[in-house]
Amino acid sequence: MAKATLTISSKNYSSWSLRGWLLCKMAGLDFEEEQLSASDPSTRAELLLLSPSFLVPCLTHHGIKVWDTLAIAEYLHEIKPEAGLLPADQAARAHCRSISGEMHSGFANLRSALPMNLKARYPDFKIWAGAQADIDRVAEIWEEALERYRGPFLFGKKPTMADAMYAPVCTRFITYDVELDQPAAAYCKRIAALPHMIEWTKGAKAEPEELEELDAEF
Amino acid sequence: MAKATLTISSKNYSSWSLRGWLLCKMAGLDFEEEQLSASDPSTRAELLLLSPSFLVPCLTHHGIKVWDTLAIAEYLHEIKPEAGLLPADQAARAHCRSISGEMHSGFANLRSALPMNLKARYPDFKIWAGAQADIDRVAEIWEEALERYRGPFLFGKKPTMADAMYAPVCTRFITYDVELDQPAAAYCKRIAALPHMIEWTKGAKAEPEELEELDAEF
Repeated sequence: MAKATLTISSKNYSSWSLRGWLLCKMAGLDFEEEQLSASDPSTRAELLLLSPSFLVPCLTHHGIKVWDTLAIAEYLHEIKPEAGLLPADQAARAHCRSISGEMHSGFANLRSALPMNLKARYPDFKIWAGAQADIDRVAEIWEEALERYRGPFLFGKKPTMADAMYAPVCTRFITYDVELDQPAAAYCKRIAALPHMIEWTKGAKAEPEELEELDAEF
Repeated sequence: MAKATLTISSKNYSSWSLRGWLLCKMAGLDFEEEQLSASDPSTRAELLLLSPSFLVPCLTHHGIKVWDTLAIAEYLHEIKPEAGLLPADQAARAHCRSISGEMHSGFANLRSALPMNLKARYPDFKIWAGAQADIDRVAEIWEEALERYRGPFLFGKKPTMADAMYAPVCTRFITYDVELDQPAAAYCKRIAALPHMIEWTKGAKAEPEELEELDAEF
């Protein structure tokens, strides 16, 4: 049977690609990466926020195509339930899906003002009020979950889909030098230190700079 | 045991509230509506697209709070699997979640340029190019699903979560007099004619005009 394929775009800039890839890794799926180049129209449209919707990441598995991050998470949870992408307890599972959904549909100011860029560091980056409201809500979500489920991950001892959904936000908070209270700051560092995150970040840093022209457009 | 409660905001303007409510109705859940008034800060923030994320609709059921539309759909599917909110076939289910996710995270131009407003009709509404790209993609999604699963709903004979996710878009296409090819135009009318949609629309039209000041701000 053909191996699964995950289609992604830029490792440095595409936060949705990172989420999909992390979910596949966390599920223990055996998959191959297929990376679209920066000159691919759908990659450009995504990175410039011009696309009506995002068709990467896309998982192809046994002839089934799944192209939305939450849909990929639910699909992986169906085929690899033992990976625990969703908490076993029903109330925790509903909570996990609620905050994953919030990340999926919301936080537009955070996304546009602090785009993911793993190669960059902006000390003392000036954050405008709209993005700050998003940051405050993210920190509130994390702190509530870390307290309720006792960490070190949002829903306890193992990462779930919620950690994958918020992982690119952790990198943004580091890139843009965002000030956070202790539990949230520690959570950011914990996520950035995960072996899968280190592997992805290494790939991002090794990426050729064909995207420089995109940087100029941001 | 306490009855379930669904917290919603404006029936006329809140497309997320309509989605959550339709999902509960389609699942056959016995629930009470709790409507936040237009002067409630979270309602205003949602309707003016100022909120970092949306905390309505919110379903409270057996002490569990679920506050994101897709999370509500998955929760209802868990407690009422017989309602068929998700297709029984795995590939169709992945497809249903993919297009539901696309609606959930995408189509920002459509949302901001053509906000839901069930009381209004704008014949010959002028649509700008960014919103037209969203409209074209929505029509493509519908036509592909209607052809593959043979209608009358996106995944065959019964409505699923995808129909609930796109239902507010159907009302927008009618409100703003959007030109569509035949399969998409017929689908819009079919959704608008569902008894639940007629019930919701009646509620929207009966809503007091305390939201006029919001209209001015749009």
